[in-house]
Amino acid sequence: MKRFLDLADFSREQLLGLLELARRLEAQPEPRALAGKILGLLFFNPSLRTLASFQAAMARLGGTSFVINPGHGSWVLETRRGAVMDGAAAEHVREAIPALASYCDALGIRVFAEQRDLASDLAEVTFNSMAELTEKPLVNLESAVNHPCQALADWKTMDDLGVPPGGRFVLSWAWHPRALPLAVPAAALHMAALRGMQVTVLRPEGFALPEPVMERARRAALHSGGTLRETSVREEALEGADILYVKEWGATACYGDAAGDAQLRATLGSWCVRNDWFAHTAPGCRLMHCLPVRRNTAIADEVLDSARSAVQREAANRLTVQTAVLHELLKS
Amino acid sequence: MKRFLDLADFSREQLLGLLELARRLEAQPEPRALAGKILGLLFFNPSLRTLASFQAAMARLGGTSFVINPGHGSWVLETRRGAVMDGAAAEHVREAIPALASYCDALGIRVFAEQRDLASDLAEVTFNSMAELTEKPLVNLESAVNHPCQALADWKTMDDLGVPPGGRFVLSWAWHPRALPLAVPAAALHMAALRGMQVTVLRPEGFALPEPVMERARRAALHSGGTLRETSVREEALEGADILYVKEWGATACYGDAAGDAQLRATLGSWCVRNDWFAHTAPGCRLMHCLPVRRNTAIADEVLDSARSAVQREAANRLTVQTAVLHELLKS
Amino acid sequence: MKRFLDLADFSREQLLGLLELARRLEAQPEPRALAGKILGLLFFNPSLRTLASFQAAMARLGGTSFVINPGHGSWVLETRRGAVMDGAAAEHVREAIPALASYCDALGIRVFAEQRDLASDLAEVTFNSMAELTEKPLVNLESAVNHPCQALADWKTMDDLGVPPGGRFVLSWAWHPRALPLAVPAAALHMAALRGMQVTVLRPEGFALPEPVMERARRAALHSGGTLRETSVREEALEGADILYVKEWGATACYGDAAGDAQLRATLGSWCVRNDWFAHTAPGCRLMHCLPVRRNTAIADEVLDSARSAVQREAANRLTVQTAVLHELLKS
Repeated sequence: MKRFLDLADFSREQLLGLLELARRLEAQPEPRALAGKILGLLFFNPSLRTLASFQAAMARLGGTSFVINPGHGSWVLETRRGAVMDGAAAEHVREAIPALASYCDALGIRVFAEQRDLASDLAEVTFNSMAELTEKPLVNLESAVNHPCQALADWKTMDDLGVPPGGRFVLSWAWHPRALPLAVPAAALHMAALRGMQVTVLRPEGFALPEPVMERARRAALHSGGTLRETSVREEALEGADILYVKEWGATACYGDAAGDAQLRATLGSWCVRNDWFAHTAPGCRLMHCLPVRRNTAIADEVLDSARSAVQREAANRLTVQTAVLHELLKS
Repeated sequence: MKRFLDLADFSREQLLGLLELARRLEAQPEPRALAGKILGLLFFNPSLRTLASFQAAMARLGGTSFVINPGHGSWVLETRRGAVMDGAAAEHVREAIPALASYCDALGIRVFAEQRDLASDLAEVTFNSMAELTEKPLVNLESAVNHPCQALADWKTMDDLGVPPGGRFVLSWAWHPRALPLAVPAAALHMAALRGMQVTVLRPEGFALPEPVMERARRAALHSGGTLRETSVREEALEGADILYVKEWGATACYGDAAGDAQLRATLGSWCVRNDWFAHTAPGCRLMHCLPVRRNTAIADEVLDSARSAVQREAANRLTVQTAVLHELLKS
Repeated sequence: MKRFLDLADFSREQLLGLLELARRLEAQPEPRALAGKILGLLFFNPSLRTLASFQAAMARLGGTSFVINPGHGSWVLETRRGAVMDGAAAEHVREAIPALASYCDALGIRVFAEQRDLASDLAEVTFNSMAELTEKPLVNLESAVNHPCQALADWKTMDDLGVPPGGRFVLSWAWHPRALPLAVPAAALHMAALRGMQVTVLRPEGFALPEPVMERARRAALHSGGTLRETSVREEALEGADILYVKEWGATACYGDAAGDAQLRATLGSWCVRNDWFAHTAPGCRLMHCLPVRRNTAIADEVLDSARSAVQREAANRLTVQTAVLHELLKS
């Protein structure tokens, strides 16, 4: 394994192998496996779990890491090819990425969607423009429309909880003051489809996921024996659900148009997940969310503080699956 | 030992044991004692000594650490229970603390006083709201009214300097352009009382420490054989002093009222410690201050650059006592 | 070796020894050489290569490091002697440096030129005011007019590329929207002169390097058998060049005068290095630049993306030479 950029790059067997390795390393840690190895972490955007858990994962394996935040103690970086750099950016990623890569054994990059042009974000133009600049093992720490570490942690979380591979998985939109990127909904949807689940996307009118995101999940479902449908009717979606996976995202129709998006979401305050959302789910239905989550706007305290919530297990599994990913990428 | 939050949580024997361990680890380092162990450091406020010395302490014991600064490379965190999160905070500590705790073996948290409501700060509402969210070993890196690592380092500093347990300890207010929190004066006062010293609080009218802070020190003094008094008369306070411990803090009467506080301190520029403050102290009287200190407003160059100053020894002792604390918390 | 502050502090033999050690550690890493050792890194200014490569260098040798950025998670620091600190700075370096030094085995400091007073910057007043505060091994991570780690990496880069010691080295000014400091041009010039090269400084009228910078290089050249001249005529300078070392810097005549400097550089947009600059150089002439570089304002894509560019090798050599420097400073 040379890179961990997208679950779609791996066969189902490879992914099950990674999850098995994660469980093995939980049970039998290998505190010297990556002794002397260095992970470089490049964050263009804020982070809590990814920032802490990757440093912790390297340390658990005996390795070390360093963190670079462009614009915060480090230079603002330009990502556009051919740019005439007379603005704020002091350096181009074409110089920065190879330099950082030369100081480490593997590199992780987080760069959120620009949220200006949907096609560009769907094509991962920015992330890929950096990925092509190094041959070193590379990890996607969240890109425009992907977050494979979160997706793998979520997969393991459902395994841990005993959710059957063919269980009912509802990905539901939730309210947020701003249009958030599509990385987590796209990755979670794809993961649930890969896992073979009966997947429903529940979202208000105007917030359908882009067709390429749906199509990719549909193909994964077809291959794994899962199903995929979408609806804006909450009762219908949640009926019998085993997992309610909640996420906030922007309106596809208004992509890059903050005002239009704001108008669309203005009346959607009822999309804050409360206990009554679970009235007709399976009795043991669990709540999932990648975090960070805004309490009492996206999800109410009564749900997050209940036994239904699996968000802490998801967060903890970031460390366990990333330990496996790093072990695969860097173990000699 | 599961937590290091407040010197008051420990018996005098336990504290003397920690100081003994600190001296032992200075003489006989244990560079592999915490191999594989991880300390998470969560800083809501700036730091120099704490930030550097905790990372150094883990490294000296063979462990590692990671640092999270909410709002600087990481999400702004909400601390209030029940908040409807439609503002700047993207995440609540109720999610963030357990997540971080799952990535490390011990967690340190720094969160200064909000300086809006004195009762809330005295009750450590914010720090405690986070402390209750994890079972992991926890260290107070400075909270609203406490700074136990500084207090323990100061205790050791006086031991190093040969200041007798029953010596004269003067905690003096000094000028600062703004109202600083009560954490260090409260912690230093309590520590000196615990140590059995003859303690005097010297402060201008209006800057008496809150009664609960004084009462707590009074009780400690009663138990240890020390004494406690307060005065605004400099000559009286400093007579025969062995230690002049200087600190800036806000006016209790104007707590949370910056304008009122500013008015009170406007005429107090003479509260910048100069050589003549030592005219009637014990001849070997030493200056202490937790740092950071503003030169020539709180303490003059002539004092900080003199042989009286013990501030560097205090700073260095942060590392030594914290090494002992981490050893106690994390050594298997 | 106690400090690494300036190549001029070392004999040519010592520098050649460091380069030899760097090559040896590349071939035969010593992953436990600095086990238990700690490097403190104090950055007053942004960094990418220095920040990452020093952490990586310590890790490659089995040691660890911590990073402090005054004003970003740590206190704003005052550097002026005798300052009355009633402004933004909460702490003076006279307290901060000894405290940090007490937590580590070696300290690195980056502090760029203030660019107000040329004489003060040439005298390294700010850096030296900090260097004198600690006896610990100290590394200059870039000061007002020096950058010895970059210079040593550049020396090794030319060795790696087979550039003969007596080869033709052209240091050329390039356009930048602002007046950048003199640290890299001064250090690169001095290094090339020390190496015994035939050195030409190519710069527009008004951008001659300060006479003390030139004089220092002249003396080095005299001793090493090299030569030094300067010109504003591009064709003359580049004729037969083996190395074109590009750097942006401010006008000496307008030092500290941003408006004057801007006026001087307003018409100098043609000082963006393009392929045609290499028309009369030696055929194998290589481009060097310390990075960060602004593409298509200082150097065009066509040059940076060509086989002429040695900038990535320079960046990678930061790690290799610094590994040698730290080994010399800290190996018991």
